[in-house]
Amino acid sequence: MYKKMSQVSYNTIYGINNCISFLKTDKKFSIQNIFINKSSKIVNDNKIFKLVKNKSLVKYLDKDNFNRKFNFKHSQGIVIRFNGHLTASLLNKNDFSKNSCLLLCDQINDPQNLGQIIRTSECAGVNGIVLPKHQSVQISDTVIQVSQGAFFSLNVYSETNLNNTIKYLKSIGFWIVGIENSINAQKWHQIDYNEKIAIVIGSEGKGIRPLIKKSCDFLGTIPMLGKTNSLNVSAALSAVLFERQRQLENIL
Amino acid sequence: MYKKMSQVSYNTIYGINNCISFLKTDKKFSIQNIFINKSSKIVNDNKIFKLVKNKSLVKYLDKDNFNRKFNFKHSQGIVIRFNGHLTASLLNKNDFSKNSCLLLCDQINDPQNLGQIIRTSECAGVNGIVLPKHQSVQISDTVIQVSQGAFFSLNVYSETNLNNTIKYLKSIGFWIVGIENSINAQKWHQIDYNEKIAIVIGSEGKGIRPLIKKSCDFLGTIPMLGKTNSLNVSAALSAVLFERQRQLENIL
Repeated sequence: MYKKMSQVSYNTIYGINNCISFLKTDKKFSIQNIFINKSSKIVNDNKIFKLVKNKSLVKYLDKDNFNRKFNFKHSQGIVIRFNGHLTASLLNKNDFSKNSCLLLCDQINDPQNLGQIIRTSECAGVNGIVLPKHQSVQISDTVIQVSQGAFFSLNVYSETNLNNTIKYLKSIGFWIVGIENSINAQKWHQIDYNEKIAIVIGSEGKGIRPLIKKSCDFLGTIPMLGKTNSLNVSAALSAVLFERQRQLENIL
Repeated sequence: MYKKMSQVSYNTIYGINNCISFLKTDKKFSIQNIFINKSSKIVNDNKIFKLVKNKSLVKYLDKDNFNRKFNFKHSQGIVIRFNGHLTASLLNKNDFSKNSCLLLCDQINDPQNLGQIIRTSECAGVNGIVLPKHQSVQISDTVIQVSQGAFFSLNVYSETNLNNTIKYLKSIGFWIVGIENSINAQKWHQIDYNEKIAIVIGSEGKGIRPLIKKSCDFLGTIPMLGKTNSLNVSAALSAVLFERQRQLENIL
């Protein structure tokens, strides 16, 4: 009934919060279909349907058919298929103002981590995330799903060479702060975040690559107080981003 | 060959870090077996085998047999089966000193979240976690695995009634700080953490239950700067716990 189209690859998201964020996004996507489970409560949810401009894209499926097609644990009766560019390709000077904050992800490989990183960043007022095109997890359905809608209100930039990105960011007034698990770094709260800041994080296993680390203006670390010495990268990022928020609030 | 024992229920953990933390723990567990994949690198890892007191518990399995029995994605060739009490049942006054910090989890239901919460808490020097016996996820293999070994160096207390626990903690000098997503609360960094502190967190959907909230001395919140308004509970906790660490460092 819904033919597979061989040329276009679609993304699939589900769940009420994620789908509402999608329908509200400023990003340019085109919807293939919005699939609704006829037997779910969502059928009566005006909050969602008010956001759908082209009602002909909504397809109602009976419960069995819906569950056969979409084997998701928490679909909440709604699945959206869409396509379009998931990332932007150019960082533009005019996108940033006085206290802008960017996040640069060096070799993050776990989609769950990237999803959490996007979610935390959006909540902490980060203005955009830069992902390298190679040796990095890319935006996928899993990443979007884990981000709980945050992906749709935060720009993700895809760049070929992180070192060139850093050079460009420095040229437009950004300070580059690398976060690593190391004793040769300042404590995270000793860094001044009251400027244009780009925060660099690396993979959990290997940290930031040496060349990237060299181009950082500051290196920050979160000393571990326990025995395990392994804070999750998104938990570490949360500590850093909300320390930035604290500093901004104490100055404003 | 390895008979199922019907009376005892075993926990199963895997992966090098988790297994090393297990073998170093002060908690009293008894090992059923340590299973090793004969074809994995771990066979030559002295760091692990030095920690095993009773070598007869180590069982070497060939690759196919190991993979048939343990269908884990990242076992790294080692699986430990053990049993024993996963939680302690009594909070004792003498366990705590001047700046002790406890975490009270009210109705956390997702094992992934609890695992991350334990991991972050251990790294941030939390002295123990209290879980209610009912209406809460309990310690399971998944929780332990996600905690990446942190579970083995942090006490988890299981209590019947969180309100009674709070009363007891107040009686021995703890301040109770509830963290919620609300505008009727102080900002998280306006709270003074330089005392015996018990931090209360609630489920992501519902927050802290009203009665528990009422018994808190302070309520803290992390204002959301983005559009999604949904910070993951373990990310919020990370911001709070490292703000506590920052305050302690600035005073000491």
